[in-house]
Amino acid sequence: MAITEITGSSLDPQRFIADQVKAISDAVGSGTAVNALSGGVDSSAVTMLGHRALGDRLKTYFIDNGLMRAGEPRQVVSMFRQLGVPVELHDARAEFLGALEGITDPEEKREAVTQTFYRHVFGRLVRESGAKYLLQGTILTDVDETVAGIKRQHNVFEQLGIDPQEAFGYRILEPLVQLRKDAVRIAGRALGLPAPLFDRIPFPGPALAARVIGEATPERIATVRRATTIVERLLAGTGAFQYMAILHEDRVTGMRDGRRDFGRQIEVRCWDSVDARVAAPTRLPFELLDTLAAEILREVPGAVSVTYNIAPKPPSTIEAV
Amino acid sequence: MAITEITGSSLDPQRFIADQVKAISDAVGSGTAVNALSGGVDSSAVTMLGHRALGDRLKTYFIDNGLMRAGEPRQVVSMFRQLGVPVELHDARAEFLGALEGITDPEEKREAVTQTFYRHVFGRLVRESGAKYLLQGTILTDVDETVAGIKRQHNVFEQLGIDPQEAFGYRILEPLVQLRKDAVRIAGRALGLPAPLFDRIPFPGPALAARVIGEATPERIATVRRATTIVERLLAGTGAFQYMAILHEDRVTGMRDGRRDFGRQIEVRCWDSVDARVAAPTRLPFELLDTLAAEILREVPGAVSVTYNIAPKPPSTIEAV
Repeated sequence: MAITEITGSSLDPQRFIADQVKAISDAVGSGTAVNALSGGVDSSAVTMLGHRALGDRLKTYFIDNGLMRAGEPRQVVSMFRQLGVPVELHDARAEFLGALEGITDPEEKREAVTQTFYRHVFGRLVRESGAKYLLQGTILTDVDETVAGIKRQHNVFEQLGIDPQEAFGYRILEPLVQLRKDAVRIAGRALGLPAPLFDRIPFPGPALAARVIGEATPERIATVRRATTIVERLLAGTGAFQYMAILHEDRVTGMRDGRRDFGRQIEVRCWDSVDARVAAPTRLPFELLDTLAAEILREVPGAVSVTYNIAPKPPSTIEAV
Repeated sequence: MAITEITGSSLDPQRFIADQVKAISDAVGSGTAVNALSGGVDSSAVTMLGHRALGDRLKTYFIDNGLMRAGEPRQVVSMFRQLGVPVELHDARAEFLGALEGITDPEEKREAVTQTFYRHVFGRLVRESGAKYLLQGTILTDVDETVAGIKRQHNVFEQLGIDPQEAFGYRILEPLVQLRKDAVRIAGRALGLPAPLFDRIPFPGPALAARVIGEATPERIATVRRATTIVERLLAGTGAFQYMAILHEDRVTGMRDGRRDFGRQIEVRCWDSVDARVAAPTRLPFELLDTLAAEILREVPGAVSVTYNIAPKPPSTIEAV
């Protein structure tokens, strides 16, 4: 099924919102729906659309998968509470980290997060809720990349020939599937999201598991979480499209206290992009790169090396995993 | 035995040369000596000192270990021929690459190169020559780092309590051991070395084997050799102390022709330093970083990602392996 793109410049946000609210209402009828909120602009916009369409008949979960950034679960739930949208925080950390144990292959890692999310954790919540409709924040770039086989996005089924009703027992509604990231931000702002949400940098589903090369152990997730906090704090003011810290598996020679320390490497990526289809490394001032490196080397256990990505997408992708 | 440093600013090059030529003459007497020339400023300066002291009684080998840069063996031999210093090119590629097979640990890799060089290839050449003296380009920084346990330099024995006469059957003379890199360059220039030699960026003994993380297979050496050619050509004009390409073992997600390409990452390092004890990443213009990345992505098979080092030494070291 061909999807008609609505570009950021052609988007009439109020009309788009009205259309999508009506489409959700029509589809769900007098039934109930559920959705999972990650705090990214996509799932935040979907939560607002669903809340407008269904009110209390939408049940929204924030699933703590143990792969979120420092303080993120409570921050997101609290921001939505302030918007009058109830969100239930569900702790599934042990289940996700258990599913990731021993897995090093990037696609298998994404698949483990996907399966744990849909088949197990969220699937269970959906079944318990009795809802037959699932609202999802799939955007057009996710569809493109999954169909092209570049990355297996966690939220694209139909385009891969998977029937979610058959596979998971519910129907999926994807109100943002005609938009790319820039248009979603416009819609999100029009939906009343505060700037930290409509302007939030992308943070894909596999979360910090996609920010470690190799096995996503609890200890390695904790390490990249510390680096992520530093990178996000220092780069928040750059206006860049997306920025991240990546923990490498390769070990490199370093020195501490005058002796060899065979340590870790953290890669920093910061992207200029409109819609994630193509992207270029942001030309950060070297003073800022120095500060980034110094803080990471001081705060991240075992780090002896820090690099900055200088390759564009393509042939790179935004995320390394 | 404490070594008295001669700093670059206090070095009187002509006096230093006269002293060292006399020391070599006195030590070797009417005997013969051998040395191995790598083309780096250290071994080049030693070759010139030995040639002045001993003339035909010094036999100089350039050992092609299969780990050199593109065209390097013939270029170096030809430059010395133009200086009137005969150098014999010895092909030992198969022996070194065989010794590196299956080795991934950095220290074991260095050790494999060291052992192949001293015990086998060069050891054999020395024994065949009948020489009892070996001239070596050890500098003070090598001694410091080896004693501190930061890196096992290939050319430091005495400081580790290893008697080379007992272990390898010859005595080692180290005329540059009081100098650091900046002073060696001054001495090298005074010895008549052309700029491409006295100003050559450092390229340590394990050569390209130290520029791949993980196993140094012939194919991976060939890959990093291509990246090295690009990095050295584009950064030659920067005046930086040292610059290099490093092939990572980690694989990262990229895309080519619209499809996923789970590819290679090349890290570029470019250092500002006086004597390699401390070093800072050179603040290269982003236009140059873009060009570097574009050429590497175009020319190096399988490369989908390029990073630039932003960590200082310490806690980083100049080389990654």
